[in-house]
Amino acid sequence: MDFSHPLSGITVPMVTPLSNDGRLDPDGLDRLTEHVIQGGARGLFVLGTTGEGPSLSGTLQREVVLRVCQASSGRAQVLVGITHPCAAEALDLAEFSASAGAHAVVYAGPSYYPVAQSELLRHAAHMVEASPLPLFLYNMPSHTGVVFEPETVRQLMEMPGTAGLKDSSGDLMYFQRICRLREKRPDFSVLMGPEELMVPAMSVGATGGVNGGANMFPSLYVSLYEACVTGNTNEARRLQHAVLDISEGIYSAGAYASSYLKGLKYALSLLGICMDGMAEPYSPLEAGHRERVAKALVELQARHALAA
Amino acid sequence: MDFSHPLSGITVPMVTPLSNDGRLDPDGLDRLTEHVIQGGARGLFVLGTTGEGPSLSGTLQREVVLRVCQASSGRAQVLVGITHPCAAEALDLAEFSASAGAHAVVYAGPSYYPVAQSELLRHAAHMVEASPLPLFLYNMPSHTGVVFEPETVRQLMEMPGTAGLKDSSGDLMYFQRICRLREKRPDFSVLMGPEELMVPAMSVGATGGVNGGANMFPSLYVSLYEACVTGNTNEARRLQHAVLDISEGIYSAGAYASSYLKGLKYALSLLGICMDGMAEPYSPLEAGHRERVAKALVELQARHALAA
Amino acid sequence: MDFSHPLSGITVPMVTPLSNDGRLDPDGLDRLTEHVIQGGARGLFVLGTTGEGPSLSGTLQREVVLRVCQASSGRAQVLVGITHPCAAEALDLAEFSASAGAHAVVYAGPSYYPVAQSELLRHAAHMVEASPLPLFLYNMPSHTGVVFEPETVRQLMEMPGTAGLKDSSGDLMYFQRICRLREKRPDFSVLMGPEELMVPAMSVGATGGVNGGANMFPSLYVSLYEACVTGNTNEARRLQHAVLDISEGIYSAGAYASSYLKGLKYALSLLGICMDGMAEPYSPLEAGHRERVAKALVELQARHALAA
Amino acid sequence: MDFSHPLSGITVPMVTPLSNDGRLDPDGLDRLTEHVIQGGARGLFVLGTTGEGPSLSGTLQREVVLRVCQASSGRAQVLVGITHPCAAEALDLAEFSASAGAHAVVYAGPSYYPVAQSELLRHAAHMVEASPLPLFLYNMPSHTGVVFEPETVRQLMEMPGTAGLKDSSGDLMYFQRICRLREKRPDFSVLMGPEELMVPAMSVGATGGVNGGANMFPSLYVSLYEACVTGNTNEARRLQHAVLDISEGIYSAGAYASSYLKGLKYALSLLGICMDGMAEPYSPLEAGHRERVAKALVELQARHALAA
Repeated sequence: MDFSHPLSGITVPMVTPLSNDGRLDPDGLDRLTEHVIQGGARGLFVLGTTGEGPSLSGTLQREVVLRVCQASSGRAQVLVGITHPCAAEALDLAEFSASAGAHAVVYAGPSYYPVAQSELLRHAAHMVEASPLPLFLYNMPSHTGVVFEPETVRQLMEMPGTAGLKDSSGDLMYFQRICRLREKRPDFSVLMGPEELMVPAMSVGATGGVNGGANMFPSLYVSLYEACVTGNTNEARRLQHAVLDISEGIYSAGAYASSYLKGLKYALSLLGICMDGMAEPYSPLEAGHRERVAKALVELQARHALAA
Repeated sequence: MDFSHPLSGITVPMVTPLSNDGRLDPDGLDRLTEHVIQGGARGLFVLGTTGEGPSLSGTLQREVVLRVCQASSGRAQVLVGITHPCAAEALDLAEFSASAGAHAVVYAGPSYYPVAQSELLRHAAHMVEASPLPLFLYNMPSHTGVVFEPETVRQLMEMPGTAGLKDSSGDLMYFQRICRLREKRPDFSVLMGPEELMVPAMSVGATGGVNGGANMFPSLYVSLYEACVTGNTNEARRLQHAVLDISEGIYSAGAYASSYLKGLKYALSLLGICMDGMAEPYSPLEAGHRERVAKALVELQARHALAA
Repeated sequence: MDFSHPLSGITVPMVTPLSNDGRLDPDGLDRLTEHVIQGGARGLFVLGTTGEGPSLSGTLQREVVLRVCQASSGRAQVLVGITHPCAAEALDLAEFSASAGAHAVVYAGPSYYPVAQSELLRHAAHMVEASPLPLFLYNMPSHTGVVFEPETVRQLMEMPGTAGLKDSSGDLMYFQRICRLREKRPDFSVLMGPEELMVPAMSVGATGGVNGGANMFPSLYVSLYEACVTGNTNEARRLQHAVLDISEGIYSAGAYASSYLKGLKYALSLLGICMDGMAEPYSPLEAGHRERVAKALVELQARHALAA
Repeated sequence: MDFSHPLSGITVPMVTPLSNDGRLDPDGLDRLTEHVIQGGARGLFVLGTTGEGPSLSGTLQREVVLRVCQASSGRAQVLVGITHPCAAEALDLAEFSASAGAHAVVYAGPSYYPVAQSELLRHAAHMVEASPLPLFLYNMPSHTGVVFEPETVRQLMEMPGTAGLKDSSGDLMYFQRICRLREKRPDFSVLMGPEELMVPAMSVGATGGVNGGANMFPSLYVSLYEACVTGNTNEARRLQHAVLDISEGIYSAGAYASSYLKGLKYALSLLGICMDGMAEPYSPLEAGHRERVAKALVELQARHALAA
């Protein structure tokens, strides 16, 4: 299958539905895939941070890739997160993804060893070259400790295999500088991670978003994206505020870095989409926080007229 | 084989000798094993940060474990680094290590997802319980982003399977607090990582060190340890200064986080011990820095009468 | 004089023109004041970070306040930075500013001692209460080490004397949350510091900007602001790109935190507006960087048709 | 008066006794001065971080300097903290200190503007040259955001006016490197700030300590220092553990950065030495924590046979 350039609109960083004993919930994964495609998602990003990719065994990872490729059957682009401290293992997953019919891979860089930019450039170029699929850079310093500096990105963009960049740093100064690099590569995708920043991201030239909340309410995020593209400022701000309310209501129970992921998976189980088991090092949302999230979910659906 | 408690003296965080195309240099690994045992090492820590463990494929990791267990044949304790973002994969390596005859495993915690201390405690307890071998905690915040706080360590010490802690944070305030916890578990090992801090570490109660330079000059580090234990202050400080000179001469070419590892491997190749290939994301010491390290090595050997 | 709520449009964080021996350049200050008022500035912020306020003696600070109040004579709001590690000294400057005819003061919080949010709230409330003029909070964590968390701001907004917030953190997530607090206090000003972020800031509801480059080219920043307000997206992005070019050309010589300030003052001297002496701990732009900035200035003026 | 080189033994970073309305408690200050001199203090460091120097008005600062110079009357070296964001104001205080009979000044560097090392070197050299008294560098990155890198210190040591360095970073790697620089300047003082690190500091060559707890129990810290100097390892470790107990019992109520200072001042008031008022941005120890500190104080005095 061909990869469409640039990737625009909403890509869903799909959760990996798991049972409480850590096995894949295959029916949940199929329902989720169908749910987000019906909601207008243009891309399906599996095994990313939201997908707990790094926490899953190689076997489970391959199960997920295969199933989503089959269930989506070409109706959306499939991107596979291959981030792994061992480059050889990462590339092995890229090969598998290519054979399974995925469209691109996503790589966040070395996640154990600190690297200087010159080292990152050399290493990332090696990954792009060795990958059988187009490769998205994934800027995720809170989890990897490394930033793909704009000058490094600029040099990597000279390789056609570098397909785009997803930024989850939350740094708009950085994001804007990356967007400006598109002048020389209009087919290059620049995607905003944190859903709370979609409006400012679109204002500086993002091609789309990779928003976790789209697992629950894909059409909300698609509408937000479209309001930005069509210059409907009031509607965009209204929808952005709905997203901020989701963030505060669903992702903030416990105030840990994991609250986002735990809350999102629990909400998906409440919506009847999939199971909420989690892979080590995390465990499902603590009992003490469940009521709060459940209540917030009901209120949000009412206030913003959200249908899952 | 039994594990001796506490682990005292010098444990060598062994490099993984690699050819330039990323294959194991098996003869180099055997020579290195013999070299450090002859030099007085009490422990052999394979697949740690210095051993590029996280960068190696599962197959290569197992090759290293097996070979060092065989070559050491019970003359030193073998510790295996199992740090991996996927807990199941980490435990799989622990099982293999047990069957190969290793004595303990070493785990630095989740290296991709950020965790709160309560999450770290739950997760690490799970790892200790599930591990077939005694488990060392490895405090390495610069690479993992997480600290095993003293209160977390105190609770994990209530499990007999928690064998000790290696600290590479460089934070003596922290290290001293961990040493104090030994009052209730005298069999618990507390090991200092950075070799530049051996004298202060011993002054607050370390049981030993895990010093990278011991790959090159094991007897120097053993002598330093012994001078501390016997209260020979002047000798200890003299040897510590030799170690500081090694650090400045061998580990500082390029001023990256990787300079330590690149310099160490290059020096080992100059000493005729093993090959200096490196696993992605790193590459061997840059040509422009090789002369400087080579010169420093000769000078250090002369000044401090060091025989490899 | 009354303070207009909320403060909208462009406020200029005025440099303090100094001779090479550290004395005030009074004519330069008058020229600068006239220059930015003619260019459409709505506010004049003296003694801020750009104004080197914390580096100036109490005597020099008062000289600046008095002179700008006189020269502006009510044609723009005068805001005075009072940030000082000693609260009593800060309040003393606030008293002086009130008597000199300034409209508001700006306070970045304690800049030496670290404070918890509960301590910051108590302390800032004390400052608002004791200040004779409306007080702007100044969120500047890179220089003070402290963030005015949204919940702290929300509570301080219950005091009418809290007039607004200037954010120089560059964190749009934070900035957006502060903008949302305006729902309950429409007279509250929320101003973006970094000029590189004006477009995204306006997209989430900023009332204006406090942009250093407006010392040089005030009308450019006023036009950028107005393009945002009127929803002229293409024009806004074009002007934002001009600002990014200024940032890269003028503020980036030397790659230090001080490059912005040194470059800005040197450019102002080239434009014939004022002298470029600097207060300790800084010194004027290094000779080796002067040519680069001079060249960039000429190019920028030509490319973007900028008249000082 | 002459300044003795190097400063060895214990220097007390004196608190500034204040009434609840922020005025100096002059009798408390005299009692404190006498108390610590009787306890064996070699140096009296006023207006440091523990002395809330940066939070006090210029008038109050001068009151403190004068009073301590008079009360000590040459029985101990008086060091005055002059750290101020305005260099001219800092030097003005240095002039006053010289005329009042103090022996040295202490400067932590710019505390508002970030500086590169080249800028810090130039600026600090200016301060040393302009100061009428020998100047101690004060490495305090948690409060100033800047580190005096070893190479910068080495260059500043070429100026005879650079008298020593107090390190409060807690970084023993750094501290050891500074101690090694003494080889070329044996008269240079290297003092450890955090009292919890006295044993490791002495093990790598500190000339003394600047320990806050010595306000309460000066002879304890003097004994600890002497046990280290005489190589009495067991006694040193026993006394270090007493200090750790003080730290955990008195300085840890509330878990803020301010807990140390609030707890220390409250304990001093309980010991009948001085009042416990505090300067903005801090306020006295919260009522809810007072009982805990009071109880800890009694227990500590009993367990370690401490007389104030």
